[in-house]
Amino acid sequence: MNIRPLHDRVVIKRLEEEQKTAGGIVIPDTAAEKPQRGEVVAVGNGKPLDNGETRKPEVKVGDKVMFGKFSGTEIKIDGDEVVVMREDDILAVVA
Amino acid sequence: MNIRPLHDRVVIKRLEEEQKTAGGIVIPDTAAEKPQRGEVVAVGNGKPLDNGETRKPEVKVGDKVMFGKFSGTEIKIDGDEVVVMREDDILAVVA
Amino acid sequence: MNIRPLHDRVVIKRLEEEQKTAGGIVIPDTAAEKPQRGEVVAVGNGKPLDNGETRKPEVKVGDKVMFGKFSGTEIKIDGDEVVVMREDDILAVVA
Amino acid sequence: MNIRPLHDRVVIKRLEEEQKTAGGIVIPDTAAEKPQRGEVVAVGNGKPLDNGETRKPEVKVGDKVMFGKFSGTEIKIDGDEVVVMREDDILAVVA
Amino acid sequence: MNIRPLHDRVVIKRLEEEQKTAGGIVIPDTAAEKPQRGEVVAVGNGKPLDNGETRKPEVKVGDKVMFGKFSGTEIKIDGDEVVVMREDDILAVVA
Amino acid sequence: MNIRPLHDRVVIKRLEEEQKTAGGIVIPDTAAEKPQRGEVVAVGNGKPLDNGETRKPEVKVGDKVMFGKFSGTEIKIDGDEVVVMREDDILAVVA
Amino acid sequence: MNIRPLHDRVVIKRLEEEQKTAGGIVIPDTAAEKPQRGEVVAVGNGKPLDNGETRKPEVKVGDKVMFGKFSGTEIKIDGDEVVVMREDDILAVVA
Repeated sequence: MNIRPLHDRVVIKRLEEEQKTAGGIVIPDTAAEKPQRGEVVAVGNGKPLDNGETRKPEVKVGDKVMFGKFSGTEIKIDGDEVVVMREDDILAVVA
Repeated sequence: MNIRPLHDRVVIKRLEEEQKTAGGIVIPDTAAEKPQRGEVVAVGNGKPLDNGETRKPEVKVGDKVMFGKFSGTEIKIDGDEVVVMREDDILAVVA
Repeated sequence: MNIRPLHDRVVIKRLEEEQKTAGGIVIPDTAAEKPQRGEVVAVGNGKPLDNGETRKPEVKVGDKVMFGKFSGTEIKIDGDEVVVMREDDILAVVA
Repeated sequence: MNIRPLHDRVVIKRLEEEQKTAGGIVIPDTAAEKPQRGEVVAVGNGKPLDNGETRKPEVKVGDKVMFGKFSGTEIKIDGDEVVVMREDDILAVVA
Repeated sequence: MNIRPLHDRVVIKRLEEEQKTAGGIVIPDTAAEKPQRGEVVAVGNGKPLDNGETRKPEVKVGDKVMFGKFSGTEIKIDGDEVVVMREDDILAVVA
Repeated sequence: MNIRPLHDRVVIKRLEEEQKTAGGIVIPDTAAEKPQRGEVVAVGNGKPLDNGETRKPEVKVGDKVMFGKFSGTEIKIDGDEVVVMREDDILAVVA
Repeated sequence: MNIRPLHDRVVIKRLEEEQKTAGGIVIPDTAAEKPQRGEVVAVGNGKPLDNGETRKPEVKVGDKVMFGKFSGTEIKIDGDEVVVMREDDILAVVA
């Protein structure tokens, strides 16, 4: 996927909910709600700081992450729906 | 539990309410309300500061903590419901 | 009381209202309203600053303080109801 | 009056309205409204700055000051009603 | 007028509207609206900055200035109605 | 026009809409809406920064600029209606 | 197009939606919604920082970018409708 998120943004592809996985990740299966779990597919250069420097992101491509229900903006790239959000909206990196 | 909260976030497992404990912690037993007491199960690297440094967290895994009713976001990991919040939403560390 | 408030928070035990005290502290006796006077029972390490340092608190355990009606969060510790608030919500230290 | 306001707060005793004074201070005599003029009876150590320093207050005990209608919090000390406000809520020092 | 505005505040005496003046200043003559033009009668020491310094004001006593309709707080001093506002609420200095 | 805008403010004289100009500037001709195009007639000293310095403005007198519909405050100077806004409310400098 | 956006603003010409492109960019074809994809046609000098420096923009003229539905302000230049937004409102640069 040829996309470079700007500044401290991250592009995430939502992962369909898996009832029981080896790593044991379970998401409430309310059909209406989109999964809050996904894989990082692109990471920006990082957050521009007030002193002119840029802070390197903590997540990297391939990380599995969890995020809030209302985080980010949905866009379509190469026919795929992805969500673009600020790194700071990511709650945690999971196995 | 294999989870790394991002930045200054902390993962907390709520502790069921104990009427009278040795340490003497009592929570109003309104069934509807979730306990505001829990145990820290994972801590992020700390809060990224404007000057590019990162401030180490004050809490550590295993700490028993108290937090506000509406703090954090509920997620499920390994079948367990945990709550992810900013360290600054934690009111206090208790015995 | 075994509690360590986080960062710039302070734990205060409300002092029942005294009509006339030696030190002369009088609180409007509207039964519904909780006293806005209390004693400091625990103090955090202080406010973490943007430059990475921590600012020492101005109040200490034992200080009698006054605070706004809606300041802080009520929690129960050892069967006692206390209120946890930011140091900056404290109006003044009184005799 | 034994009270030490915290940080950049100031304790002010409202001055009853004087129709015509030598110094010539006149306040609209709407009975409902509390006077916006008062005398400083206690001053805190000053505003804690982000760089860890504290900025000395510009007003001192005894100054006559004017402030906005809705500024500050009313409390009673030694039977006296005073108002506690941030120094920055004070509009001006008057004769 | 014996008044010292605090910090970055300025005291302004509104100037009655002049239809056509040499300097050519015209204000919409909606009787209800107070003139947005006035003369500076007192200036504070200046804005206290986060680094502990104070920024000198750009306006001085005697300057004719224009300001927004809702800027500042009305107070009476020596029987005169003046308006106290932050220097930053002043739009411009006019002839 | 004898006017010195304060700090980072700029005074702009709206330019009547030109359907087709050499420079090719076209504005939607909704009669009700005021043109969002104008000429800079006065520029302040620049934005006062937190470190005590002042940042020089990027626009200068004579620049043709575009700005948002709701930007700035209308005032009358020498019988002319002008709009005073922060430099940061200017969208772009156009030919 | 002779336009210089101010500070950290960018001028973008929306790209009509292409169902299937070599680069594979697909936009939900709700006729009412304007495409959230466009080409950068002008870039400002960059964001002025609090320390007086200016941070160079990350995007350049010719970049294809994606942005949120409600980002920016529509203006017409040389008969063309373009949208002017802050660089930080751009989600990502795409092929």
